[in-house]
Amino acid sequence: MALMKDEVDIVIPTIRTLDFLESWRPFFQPYHLIIVQDGDPSKTIKVPEGFDYDLYNRDDINRILGPKASCISYKESACRCFGFLISKKKYIFTIDDDCFVAKDPSGKEINAVEQHVRNLITPSTPFFFNTLYDPYREGADFVRGYPFSMRSGVPTAVSHGLWLNIPDYDAPTQLVKPRERSTRYVDAVITIPKGTLYPMCGMNLAFDRELIGPAMYFGLLGDGQPFKRYDDMLAGWLSKVVCDHLGLGVKTGLPYLWHSKASDPFVNLKKEFNGLFWQEELIPFFQSVVLPKECTTAQQCYLELAKLVKENLASIDPYFIRLADAMVTWIEAWDEFNPPKPAAAAS
Amino acid sequence: MALMKDEVDIVIPTIRTLDFLESWRPFFQPYHLIIVQDGDPSKTIKVPEGFDYDLYNRDDINRILGPKASCISYKESACRCFGFLISKKKYIFTIDDDCFVAKDPSGKEINAVEQHVRNLITPSTPFFFNTLYDPYREGADFVRGYPFSMRSGVPTAVSHGLWLNIPDYDAPTQLVKPRERSTRYVDAVITIPKGTLYPMCGMNLAFDRELIGPAMYFGLLGDGQPFKRYDDMLAGWLSKVVCDHLGLGVKTGLPYLWHSKASDPFVNLKKEFNGLFWQEELIPFFQSVVLPKECTTAQQCYLELAKLVKENLASIDPYFIRLADAMVTWIEAWDEFNPPKPAAAAS
Repeated sequence: MALMKDEVDIVIPTIRTLDFLESWRPFFQPYHLIIVQDGDPSKTIKVPEGFDYDLYNRDDINRILGPKASCISYKESACRCFGFLISKKKYIFTIDDDCFVAKDPSGKEINAVEQHVRNLITPSTPFFFNTLYDPYREGADFVRGYPFSMRSGVPTAVSHGLWLNIPDYDAPTQLVKPRERSTRYVDAVITIPKGTLYPMCGMNLAFDRELIGPAMYFGLLGDGQPFKRYDDMLAGWLSKVVCDHLGLGVKTGLPYLWHSKASDPFVNLKKEFNGLFWQEELIPFFQSVVLPKECTTAQQCYLELAKLVKENLASIDPYFIRLADAMVTWIEAWDEFNPPKPAAAAS
Repeated sequence: MALMKDEVDIVIPTIRTLDFLESWRPFFQPYHLIIVQDGDPSKTIKVPEGFDYDLYNRDDINRILGPKASCISYKESACRCFGFLISKKKYIFTIDDDCFVAKDPSGKEINAVEQHVRNLITPSTPFFFNTLYDPYREGADFVRGYPFSMRSGVPTAVSHGLWLNIPDYDAPTQLVKPRERSTRYVDAVITIPKGTLYPMCGMNLAFDRELIGPAMYFGLLGDGQPFKRYDDMLAGWLSKVVCDHLGLGVKTGLPYLWHSKASDPFVNLKKEFNGLFWQEELIPFFQSVVLPKECTTAQQCYLELAKLVKENLASIDPYFIRLADAMVTWIEAWDEFNPPKPAAAAS
């Protein structure tokens, strides 16, 4: 896995001193970190010594992207996708700054980067469910009755990791179950089947930039927008639709990390308010959306989705017109910073 | 769970002395067993003392079903579905006679009946994937971004359990990995999403007879037929299609049992030979089949599937015409032994 050093960037959105990195030192130090500072750019973010990192604040984002910076959210962890855009690596691992190293049931510290990379470099099986879970894992395989023609699987685009301690609940569930802790270590990696959506959390997430990067836009949310705390959900719906269309895989399960503290449920409720209503219409929309066969790249799929969002969701709220425009700007910015590889290199 | 005593039958297909029941004594003794003796009816099957059971051999099946006995397979564990047909209970747990009680990681013996019943009496969530697995389990819930309108779930029709020790592999995989053992205890129950098929194994399986019984036909396989060792797979494809159409749930995962020995891979290869080819056409067919809205009961769905099997699969092999006819006979037999409840009782 050490070979992957030059192929992975770790993207961290933050507004505070990054003490949490001490927990990750043995696992993150071999990699380059892209720290995206949210909020007031005049504030100084302290990064512990010994890490290889670049830090970008809002002034940097505005300077680098120019007018296209309008598509990057402010005061929302969605700002992390600026890091996805400017990375030059094949794989991204993004993590929240309140997440620490978890231990497996044997007490061993979990190397989340390594597990994510393992998930991404092995295929996915979205067309038929394997009851013994990940068939590519040591000690497992495809069970009787699994079609041989499907056993090569498809390339994996997304690896969604989970959380011990504080589960990723919405504000109403937080309010109802303030003491609930996630203590169950489920030793599995599962391909989410084609045609099935899931709530993608940005806390512990990895993906293949080359395969799905353009569809990993976390939207225009946060400050000044009526849609908050749904940045990762939005990216999850759209990236899954694109993966399903392009025949790419999405896995969930291992690795776990340790989520240290719950955010304030009252603040969350205020932020989530619109989303809690809107998701009841947005999810059925994204469940039924069909992309034309002509869309053969993540960019093309995403621009088509922007069009469909504008046409179909503006009736929910005029905000979705702004979102659709920001989706187009995002792809323009992506293409500017990630030009197609020259034919010689691509062949 | 003791209350479920009068609602569960345990169905065991066998050709041998049922010593394996000693392992299950504390868990099975409260329940009624339906033992379906396969093969030579003149052979005596010994059942350990203290169990409440009925045993049916081929002579009994022929006597009870008359000409309709033609739909019950001979020399194939598919004969177990005779037990499903004549049971009067709400829930069926069916198990192979080479499966013993497994232990969880804490060393505690797993009560498979209890876990299956728990899976069946709690809802399923086939329309959206919950990343923390079964949201109805203690210590778990729906994660952020799970639509509230979907949190009631749907009734669960099928509970598919797994196996420690000998995994359920096909003959080619058995030959390639003779020493592979399943040692990973994955502490999860998962709803298989709507629209996704899976390889349903009959070794450790429970279901709700009232909801899905008519679609739990294990087909006409075994002696005299060109299709063998696919009885449970066939039942899995068809019952899942019916569940998806009727809005019922299918779960897989816990409980584990301990599968003691692998069957002979050379014998299996001979038996599986046709199925290994045919599944490449059968699975895409069942993945794409659409039932008409007018089918609102499992019986109606199943008769429609019999028609579609005859129309679409006879080109693979004339055998599928016989299978389709047997599917119709099965439903006739089901309706004879399971007449609709009188209106008064149903209201």
